[in-house]
Formats: sequence, C-alpha cells, structure tokens
Amino acid sequence: MGSLDGFFVPKSIAIIGASRDQSKIGHVVMRNMVEGDYKGKVFPVNPNTSQILGLKCYPSVTKIRERVDMAVISIPAELVPKALEECGRKGIKNVIIITGGFKEIGNNELEKKLIDIAKKHKIRVIGPNCLGVFDPDSGVDTVFLPRYKLARPKGGDISFITQSGAVGSVVIDWMARKGYKMSKFISYGNASDVDEADLIEYLINDKKTKVICAYFEGVKEGRKFFEITRKFAGKKPIIVLKGGTTSAGTKAVSSHTGSLAGSFEVYSAAFRQAGIIQATDMEELFDYARTLSSLPKPKGHRVQIITDGGGFGVLLTDNIIKDGLSLATMTEEKVEEMRKKMPAYVVLKNPIDLTGDADSERYQYAITAAIEDPNVDMIGLIVLLQVPRLGGEIVDTIINAFKTSQKPIFVVSAGGDYTEVLKKTLEDIGIPTFSYPQSAAKAMKVLYEFGMETKNDKKCKKNGKK
Amino acid sequence: MGSLDGFFVPKSIAIIGASRDQSKIGHVVMRNMVEGDYKGKVFPVNPNTSQILGLKCYPSVTKIRERVDMAVISIPAELVPKALEECGRKGIKNVIIITGGFKEIGNNELEKKLIDIAKKHKIRVIGPNCLGVFDPDSGVDTVFLPRYKLARPKGGDISFITQSGAVGSVVIDWMARKGYKMSKFISYGNASDVDEADLIEYLINDKKTKVICAYFEGVKEGRKFFEITRKFAGKKPIIVLKGGTTSAGTKAVSSHTGSLAGSFEVYSAAFRQAGIIQATDMEELFDYARTLSSLPKPKGHRVQIITDGGGFGVLLTDNIIKDGLSLATMTEEKVEEMRKKMPAYVVLKNPIDLTGDADSERYQYAITAAIEDPNVDMIGLIVLLQVPRLGGEIVDTIINAFKTSQKPIFVVSAGGDYTEVLKKTLEDIGIPTFSYPQSAAKAMKVLYEFGMETKNDKKCKKNGKK
Repeated sequence: MGSLDGFFVPKSIAIIGASRDQSKIGHVVMRNMVEGDYKGKVFPVNPNTSQILGLKCYPSVTKIRERVDMAVISIPAELVPKALEECGRKGIKNVIIITGGFKEIGNNELEKKLIDIAKKHKIRVIGPNCLGVFDPDSGVDTVFLPRYKLARPKGGDISFITQSGAVGSVVIDWMARKGYKMSKFISYGNASDVDEADLIEYLINDKKTKVICAYFEGVKEGRKFFEITRKFAGKKPIIVLKGGTTSAGTKAVSSHTGSLAGSFEVYSAAFRQAGIIQATDMEELFDYARTLSSLPKPKGHRVQIITDGGGFGVLLTDNIIKDGLSLATMTEEKVEEMRKKMPAYVVLKNPIDLTGDADSERYQYAITAAIEDPNVDMIGLIVLLQVPRLGGEIVDTIINAFKTSQKPIFVVSAGGDYTEVLKKTLEDIGIPTFSYPQSAAKAMKVLYEFGMETKNDKKCKKNGKK
Repeated sequence: MGSLDGFFVPKSIAIIGASRDQSKIGHVVMRNMVEGDYKGKVFPVNPNTSQILGLKCYPSVTKIRERVDMAVISIPAELVPKALEECGRKGIKNVIIITGGFKEIGNNELEKKLIDIAKKHKIRVIGPNCLGVFDPDSGVDTVFLPRYKLARPKGGDISFITQSGAVGSVVIDWMARKGYKMSKFISYGNASDVDEADLIEYLINDKKTKVICAYFEGVKEGRKFFEITRKFAGKKPIIVLKGGTTSAGTKAVSSHTGSLAGSFEVYSAAFRQAGIIQATDMEELFDYARTLSSLPKPKGHRVQIITDGGGFGVLLTDNIIKDGLSLATMTEEKVEEMRKKMPAYVVLKNPIDLTGDADSERYQYAITAAIEDPNVDMIGLIVLLQVPRLGGEIVDTIINAFKTSQKPIFVVSAGGDYTEVLKKTLEDIGIPTFSYPQSAAKAMKVLYEFGMETKNDKKCKKNGKK
C-alpha cells in the first residue's frame, strides 16, 4: 500500500463533489484549498458545472490530464464507489472520503465495496464519514466548516487524530482560540482503511510532530495498535482520551460509530503497558501535550514554587503533594543570595512568596536562584498579573528564564482579559501556561513520569533488552 | 457589636490614606469610589494634602462634620491604631483595614491593639491585610487594583468570601471575563474581628445572595463556624474551596496567613455534616455556584442527553455514570413524536444524536420532548456550534427552553471565539454553560444531591426534628 505522505503534502488535489453552492461541503473544501495556504494545484470535479471559484471543472477525475496526488470525495454515498474506482484508474493513491452513510448506519456492504476497490488499486483511504485532514504547514484543509465558525490553529508540533468529527472540530477551534499550535489533524471516521495504528506509526516517524494526541472510542485492530505503540514506546509521547469508558458510554459508542468500545479496564491496562498517557478530558489532553512538546524533562520530582499570591501557592502545594511529587528544599547558599536582594517580608521557603508588591526584578532573582539550585528539579511559577507593580515586562522575564533553564518551568496565571492576552503571547512563542494549580501539578506529574520512562527505556535498550 | 450592613450599603465613606499619588492604594480606592457606581458621599482623609480628585481632604476623620458610616484605612501599619481610635471617637461603626504587617508577619501585638480599640468603640472591622469589599449594586469597591488590570463582574446573586487576597483578585477578574455575576465580594484577610462565620451568617440572611462561595485555609473559630453552617444547612448552598489539604500545604498556609489549617480529613467530615459542598478547584467552585443559583432542582437522577456530536455524547454519558447518576429512558410516546418530525438517521436513544446537520428546529423538538417526558429529570444539552446549519438562533431556542422548563438543563458547548461569544450571551442572561462534559456531569451531581438534602431537611423539620 502507498504512503500516507500523499494526504499531507500532495502537489495536486482533485475535489470530487466540488460545488458552486455555498451550503455544500464540496464548496467549503474548495474555498479552504483555493483561498487558504495550499500552494499546489486544485482540480474541481463535478459533471454539472464548468467552473468553480475561477477554476476549470472536470466531469470526472479521469478527464484531468495532469498528475493528481490526492482526491477528496464529498458526494452522495451510493455514488462514492464509482468515483473511487475512477480515482484508481487515474492512479490517485490517496483519497479522503468525507461522505457519511456507510458502516456507521449499518450500511456495511457499501463500505465493503470501498475497501475492495481501494485494495485493488492500492489506494490509501481516510474515512468515510470524517472531516479528513488539516495541515497548517502545507495548507491541506478538508475540514468542511467555514473559518468564521471554526478557526484554525497555527502550525506547531502537536498532532491530533480523532475518530469523532465533533470532538475534532471542537479541538481545532479551541486550539486556535488558546493560541495552541498544531502539526497535523486527522479525523479518520469509520477507518475503512487508514486506522489509528497507521496514523500513529506515521506520526511517530513524522519530523514535525513532537507529541501525538488521540481521541477514539475503540481501536479497529487491537493487536496491531498495541504492537505499534509498544514498539515505539518512549520515542514520542502518545496521549489518549478514550470515549466509552463506562458500559453506558460503550452503548452510546455503538449507536454512534458502530464500533465496539471494549472494556475500559482492559484498554487502560494495555495503554499503560504500551507507555500511552491517558487523559480524562480534553483540557487535560492538551495540558499534557503542550507540556511534553515544550518543556525539558526534569531530573527528579522536587518542585520549587514561586508565587506573588499566598493562596495560589497553598493550592499548588496541595496538588503537588496529592500527585505524588515533592517540594524542593533550596540550598542555604541560594536562599542567602535571594535574602540579600529582597525585602525582609518576602517568604523564602517553599513556596517562595514574593507577596503582592512583587515586580519583575524580584521574580527574576527567585527564578535564577531556583534554576541554579541543585536541589530543585522543576519550577512552579505562579504569576498573578492583577498586582500593582507587575506589568508586561514580566513576559520578557519569563521568556529569558525559558531560554536559560534546563529545568521545566510551569507558568500558572489566571484572571481576566489582561491576563489572557499576556498568556496568549507566551503560548504564541511556545511557552505553555496553566490556569489552575491543579492542572499544572498534573502536567508536572506526567512530564516527570514520561521522563522516567524514557530513561528506563534507554537503559533497557543499552542492556540489550527491549 | 454593630451590623455588617455598613460595609455594603454605607451612605458615606471616609478613605484614610487617600492620596494624589496614582501608585498608592489610597488613590486607587478613591478613584474606584468616586468614578465608579457608588452614590454616597466620599471623604478623603490625609493630613498632607487639601484636595483629592476634586474633593476636600480632611486631616483626620474627627474633623469631618457630617455623619460617616464606614472608613477604609490604608496607611502604614504602625499608624493604624491611632486612625482606628479616631474612627471610634467619630462614631464610625464599620472599618475596613487594608494595610498589612500584622499577625501574618508575626506582629500579634499590633493586631491585638486593633482588636481592643474595635471592642471599646463597638466597631466592626474587616481585615487587616485584605482587599476589603466589592458590591456591584451599591458600588462600594475597596479592591485596590486598577480596573484595566482587574475587571469587575456585573451584579448578580453569587457571593464570594476569601481569606486570600490573591485568590480573591483572580476570582473577580475571571468572573468578569466569563460573564459570571456577583452579589458581594469580601476579602477578609487576618479576620481580626469579622470572620468567615460572621460573613456566612450575614450572607445567608442577605436577600440578594442565592449562593455563598468561600476560599479559606483555616477557620478562626471552628465551633462557631460549624454551629452557624449547621444551623442554616440547606437554606442556601455554601460551597467551599479549602487551601491546605495536605500537610505540606498546611505548612505553606502557616507561613502565608499564620493561621492553623488543621487536618483536611477533619474539615472534610465536618463540612459534609454541615451540608457544605466541597470544590476541588476554582473552576468547579463556580460551576457549582452558577448551577445552584440558576437551575431548578431535579426530581431524580435520570439524565437525557441531546447532542449534535456523537463523541461529546459518549463523553457526557461516561461522566454521568461515573458520577453516580443515570441515563433516562424516554417514553415510547415521546420517541414516536420525535420520530415523526426528524430524519431517519437521527438517533433517538440516549444520547439523542441529532447529528452534524442539526438545526435549531431539530433541537427544539428534542428539548420539548425531554421537558415533557415523565421519565426525564435533567437534560444534558450539548450544542457544538461548529456545525454548518446551526446559527445564532439556537440562543433563542435555549432561552425559550429555560423559560418553559421546570427541569434543569445543562448546556455544554466548546470551541473558539464564535462559541465563546454565544456562551457569554447565555451567561449574561443567567443561563450557565459548561465547556466540558466532565464539568457538566459534576454540576448535575451536586445539584441533584443538594436537592435531595433540602428535601430531607424539610422532611425532618416537618417531623419536628432538626
């Protein structure tokens, strides 16, 4: 079978079902590809019209004279097999079928037809019943929802694969709002050919992807999936949010995608064995992803907290302990250094409480000391921007700290619009931020554990084991 | 001792330490009171200047001829006792002391002085070491952080008391951003006189407050606190986020406020006994508060889910079951009614999956059926706005549903800017929204349990018990 590259960096795309009617999926996909960042050639295919968005329209892909790398199909279900057959005859090796109305509504026979045609022509198929692919770098974007309703994130290094189109569309939109960045997005629907295992294998070898996130309700072939994930365990973080973890949820799955969710306990144990990180909700999924993509691995579990608000320091302390990490005890030398530079009422314990009249300079002294102190593995940096003496310059202080630190720094900041603007500035340059002490502590734990696992993995490989 | 009313609806306020210097707390408080919504008289007090913001300045409160209901003190700690003594001589019965530098840094003696003066003159004191009071209705606002950095929420029915100024300032700012509405805010700092028990008792009897939220690390007088909360259990929801729930957190508390946090297990058990709802983070605290202030109590725990995205339906199902609630089974009659009005591919089970081409009309059919169906106690309404046929009119559909329904409806909606704008519109008119299935399910559970408790409480009282 062919490579999956054709889905992400095709030099030419045929859009089967392209339309002049703005309410049609085929129109929105055309518009995304023509007016967006995609640089390759676009061939609209529709027997009933001659031109769409200024481009010549073809009655069939077989009538296109130039080479076509990928096709996107959005036409009624019963017409899809014929269109796929024509793709095969044209020599197109990658096809995204957006159309629904196959296995997910019990129409197994029609889906079987697609699979047979794809096999015959060695076509790799994503879908049917999916949103397809969004790749901010190449500009491929088959997500058929208009950008005013569903914003698109900028290019980055987090990839996301999803069985559910609804979860996928929310994730794209939400990442864009938060300033989180995306490498590749794939909504694969019924997984008639390309499934979660194929995609994970592809993304593990994809240079632009640093972290792989996934939402699914069940896996198509358990053995294949776990073989692949175990094989690459520790190479790149894989974080999974699984739907259908209760028996009622499993029932809901079966009427949703027609797939079998299977017992959560079985999955959960297998995930752990394969080194897969499990998230319990969407927010957690992306907290972990941003952490693992941006922060260096810690050498241990000792956290130094720096705060300008005592209450937030207390909440972070509680959560660090609850999650099995520990508080650092800084060396006397470093405490003494800070003592000389700061007012007497600053509390130089753990948490370090810079108090409500903290300014950027005071933050910098504390951060530098924590970075240099051998007793500190991670830094929990609480920055409440409501205080009077803290302005935009704290952003530079934080950026500098990130540049110089080999230790992971977790920025916690919460509030209103002013705070959100500064947080988005940090996200934009790749510094993850957290709104709540609880979320930061969980992310610390995951980063620590992933670091330990990678270390063990390397040790095992050194010893000739796997 | 005097009433606490004087803190929230004073007809005249003296600001001791009022200043022309914009960087001073006394200046920001002056500005809040003069340029904000406060309608009463403001008297700046400062011996070194004659006029501030166009108002005549007095060298001491004793020189003001008119009646003064409340004073706000923001001058160096060592000068506070004298100023408080003068307040006493002037007959002022309510004083907020913003100044820090007392018990929280070990200066117990200076704090004792304040307490003695307050007792002698029967003054009620909030503070020292606090932000004081914000009441959007009366316009009293001693929160000394400028509005461009820390926005203020609109008037509503959720009150929030906090020991920590930092947590308090984040909460105000964050509520404003989210469109959540506030009745009264009190940051009470060291609680030298007015403590959490006094404030809770006051807010239970306050007509504008429907739900009481609190952040504290310890209570000043455990017996008094639990007597009051037990006495009023079930009358109004009280939701507490407690800092210092681990032994390390407790230590952090002691260097923060100098108060004793006490064992979390002991607190937790006492909270349960007193009918207090416990939140584990800020987001949960306000999810519960908005739910309890806006939604009717359910008759049971059977939830009907309505969604336009299968994946989100699955996630909500999982969380409902995990939280001990159950899925409703609608009557055949209602399912039949819906069946007649909707396309065949709409899944009329639980969840009802209206699918990605849902429009407002389809939502309305499903919501109406669920409201009318005797087998349904609560409705989980997932509205993913990214889908093509759903526009702003869904807001009217939801508002109408809220007007007609005696059952609680939990709106779940997630995404980017477009979604957030529509969610804020709903929040503005008092309809709580949730971003994640997990949060909605937790809120359902809390509403159900509080409803049951109130019912039991009424039953007990009927039977002559308490």
